[in-house]
Amino acid sequence: MIQNMTENQITLYIIKALKENKQKELDAILDELQPYDIAQIYADLPEKHRTRFLLNLKIDLLADLIQELDRDEQFKVLNKLGLERKGQVLDEMDNDDLASLLDELSPEKMASLLSGMKIEESKIVQNIMNYPPETAGRLMTNRFVWIRDYYSVRDAVDKLKTFAEFAETINYLYVVDNHRKLVGVVSYRDLLIADANERISNIMYERVIAVSDTMDQEEVARMIERYDFLAIPVVNENNVLMGIVTVDDIIDVVIKEANEDIEKLSASGKAIDFDTKAFVAAYRRLPWLVLLLFIGLISGSIISGYENTLQQVVALTYFMPMISGMTGNTGTQSLAVVVRGLAVNDLDKKSIFNLIMRESGVGIIIGVTCGILISIIAYVWLGNPMLGVVVGSSLLLTLIIGTLAGTIIPIFLYRINIDPAVASGPLITTLNDIFSLIIYFGIATAFMHYLM
Amino acid sequence: MIQNMTENQITLYIIKALKENKQKELDAILDELQPYDIAQIYADLPEKHRTRFLLNLKIDLLADLIQELDRDEQFKVLNKLGLERKGQVLDEMDNDDLASLLDELSPEKMASLLSGMKIEESKIVQNIMNYPPETAGRLMTNRFVWIRDYYSVRDAVDKLKTFAEFAETINYLYVVDNHRKLVGVVSYRDLLIADANERISNIMYERVIAVSDTMDQEEVARMIERYDFLAIPVVNENNVLMGIVTVDDIIDVVIKEANEDIEKLSASGKAIDFDTKAFVAAYRRLPWLVLLLFIGLISGSIISGYENTLQQVVALTYFMPMISGMTGNTGTQSLAVVVRGLAVNDLDKKSIFNLIMRESGVGIIIGVTCGILISIIAYVWLGNPMLGVVVGSSLLLTLIIGTLAGTIIPIFLYRINIDPAVASGPLITTLNDIFSLIIYFGIATAFMHYLM
Repeated sequence: MIQNMTENQITLYIIKALKENKQKELDAILDELQPYDIAQIYADLPEKHRTRFLLNLKIDLLADLIQELDRDEQFKVLNKLGLERKGQVLDEMDNDDLASLLDELSPEKMASLLSGMKIEESKIVQNIMNYPPETAGRLMTNRFVWIRDYYSVRDAVDKLKTFAEFAETINYLYVVDNHRKLVGVVSYRDLLIADANERISNIMYERVIAVSDTMDQEEVARMIERYDFLAIPVVNENNVLMGIVTVDDIIDVVIKEANEDIEKLSASGKAIDFDTKAFVAAYRRLPWLVLLLFIGLISGSIISGYENTLQQVVALTYFMPMISGMTGNTGTQSLAVVVRGLAVNDLDKKSIFNLIMRESGVGIIIGVTCGILISIIAYVWLGNPMLGVVVGSSLLLTLIIGTLAGTIIPIFLYRINIDPAVASGPLITTLNDIFSLIIYFGIATAFMHYLM
Repeated sequence: MIQNMTENQITLYIIKALKENKQKELDAILDELQPYDIAQIYADLPEKHRTRFLLNLKIDLLADLIQELDRDEQFKVLNKLGLERKGQVLDEMDNDDLASLLDELSPEKMASLLSGMKIEESKIVQNIMNYPPETAGRLMTNRFVWIRDYYSVRDAVDKLKTFAEFAETINYLYVVDNHRKLVGVVSYRDLLIADANERISNIMYERVIAVSDTMDQEEVARMIERYDFLAIPVVNENNVLMGIVTVDDIIDVVIKEANEDIEKLSASGKAIDFDTKAFVAAYRRLPWLVLLLFIGLISGSIISGYENTLQQVVALTYFMPMISGMTGNTGTQSLAVVVRGLAVNDLDKKSIFNLIMRESGVGIIIGVTCGILISIIAYVWLGNPMLGVVVGSSLLLTLIIGTLAGTIIPIFLYRINIDPAVASGPLITTLNDIFSLIIYFGIATAFMHYLM
């Protein structure tokens, strides 16, 4: 029946079951739903039914539900549970999800939240919290299955059966030695095909691809993406198996990192989405805008230095927006290529050299093309061939410099370990504004007596 | 031994084995490597060893290798194989990978490539090629395991064992009725825990989350991300199971879509990476720049319309870069919020209304803040209070309009089914340039006799 019901129908059905206290029907329908669906239905439920709904959820479904919610909602739900159930739910949660829930909590609040948990579970979470944010250690879960190399395939399958409910993924079984060092990996598939009496050490891969627990999450994402893995083991500096990172968390990392690149490139402010309040969004966007306001005034003071030039040839102002706009654009184009390129490539000296040579080439080609084009247009429009030469040669130079600025600045930042995306679009644009005005008015002033 | 060797050492070892013709040692080392590693080693091999290396690879490793390469390299490798081995490799490749290899080939070339394949395999690929690009149908693979609802758990496990090598993922077994309609799903984990004599229909989930074969790939990615699935089934309009989409392809989709958003926001041109040649990159970037050159000239002609105003108060030009820069920036900020928001949200009438109201609020707050700030600065700098009022009120107005333009234009494009990211950063920036100049000079001209 349920397979053809819409989300609305399911919600109504659940409200009815709640009202009539039909636990069995409730369980039957909840059993068919995915965590995401349960969270959607919870969000759709009228406030007055929510507490009763939570009361009727089993611990594992509560943990599933909480993992799907936003932070604020997570705390709301946890506070509606009694102390005992809260502890049970926290025990049940995936420990990477729990770690991100605890993130940014004050030490007192964290301690109070963890106090209801089993000691061994809360210790694991606290260990995870000791890793710096955005590292493999923070993303990893301990809910995986490890086996020993002397196991037979039958032993391994037996262990798997016992832990199947507990493990976050059962695609790979990691093989450790008696010091918990990672020595091999066996896929589920390998177990299926192998003879039940075969020793694990005979069928395992010995060249295990693993990541270090302090590795940056972007690097971990790159590994999983390259190898098409469903999970990757995390080891410490002694090659001791600490946990695994699963592909579903990596998808979230990839989305988050791409959004961060876009936020920084557009200086659109941290974490503004459709639900952010106007005041908060304005507050997050303002710092950049105010900074850019002052940088914009530098352009203004440069222009004011050329007051005489301008007063004599007002037509020079006509080309100001075009020149600074184009220079800003080509810089942003280069910047985007570098920033996204860094998301998938490592950057050694050779590739930096090649990239800068490439972009020099690009700058010269587009500079020459656009420079010739605008010379002709300026001449036809204003009938002054010298003005055409001034505008065209300025554009040629500014496009080359703008392209290189958009390339070299982010590479330089990357080399000194600053995220190159902070050299955001608007910053490059505004810097290029300044360069372009200096070049344009410099050339114009030099040729002044030809222009008059 | 191999587990501690670096990539370089492995490459050298392989060259040695190739030279000395030690097939057994070669096989042993290749057996431990991941497809990505084999591709890296192939790329590192000197040209003279490559053909022999390919000759020594078994068909399945050849297929793995080819799936890791760029299109150009894929064809190079295929052409080095004989006709017979080429067909065998194509048969072995995942059919979604094969489909993207065939993409954009001329019909003759495609037919010649497919001619060496088994008829049933080439038919499957041709079916996939019939779907529009970037749909679920294009991404799906037929290498999955289906079972019937009347099977016992033992039957299912037996079938799984037979197909374990063939299937791209074995996490989920999809249950179909006698018309191949999708009626349920059983996870591998469920099979492990269940009694061997249990009927599949008793343990399967009946509410299967599936996607339509014509669904856009971005939507498919959203489903997999929401549900944390490792694969999702693809059905046609009659609910007949056509294939599955696996999470590794979805990671590639997420990265590709994010890169496309960034390319369009920065108008950086399609598919430029670190390896693109300067001439090609310039060619891809030029169309936008030339378009923006002409739009920039519109700004110029607006300014030329206010020649008299400018000649009388040259100081007005000092604030031009700041005003147009700020207006461009706030527009780009709004645009980025909308474009990325659309990647994770659906947009109904209510949320459009809310978003526009929010951004109006943002525009007013940043407009008032920056407007007051610049009024004071302009007054202090040039000692003319009226100039402060003109510049400040212009900035107030242009920031509000700029913010709304960056919001409304992409939403409008989205509603008429044009990708909103084509309203790219530079386009919004340049439009906002024009708006800001009209407002600024309009206000200045109106207040002219107070400014003198």
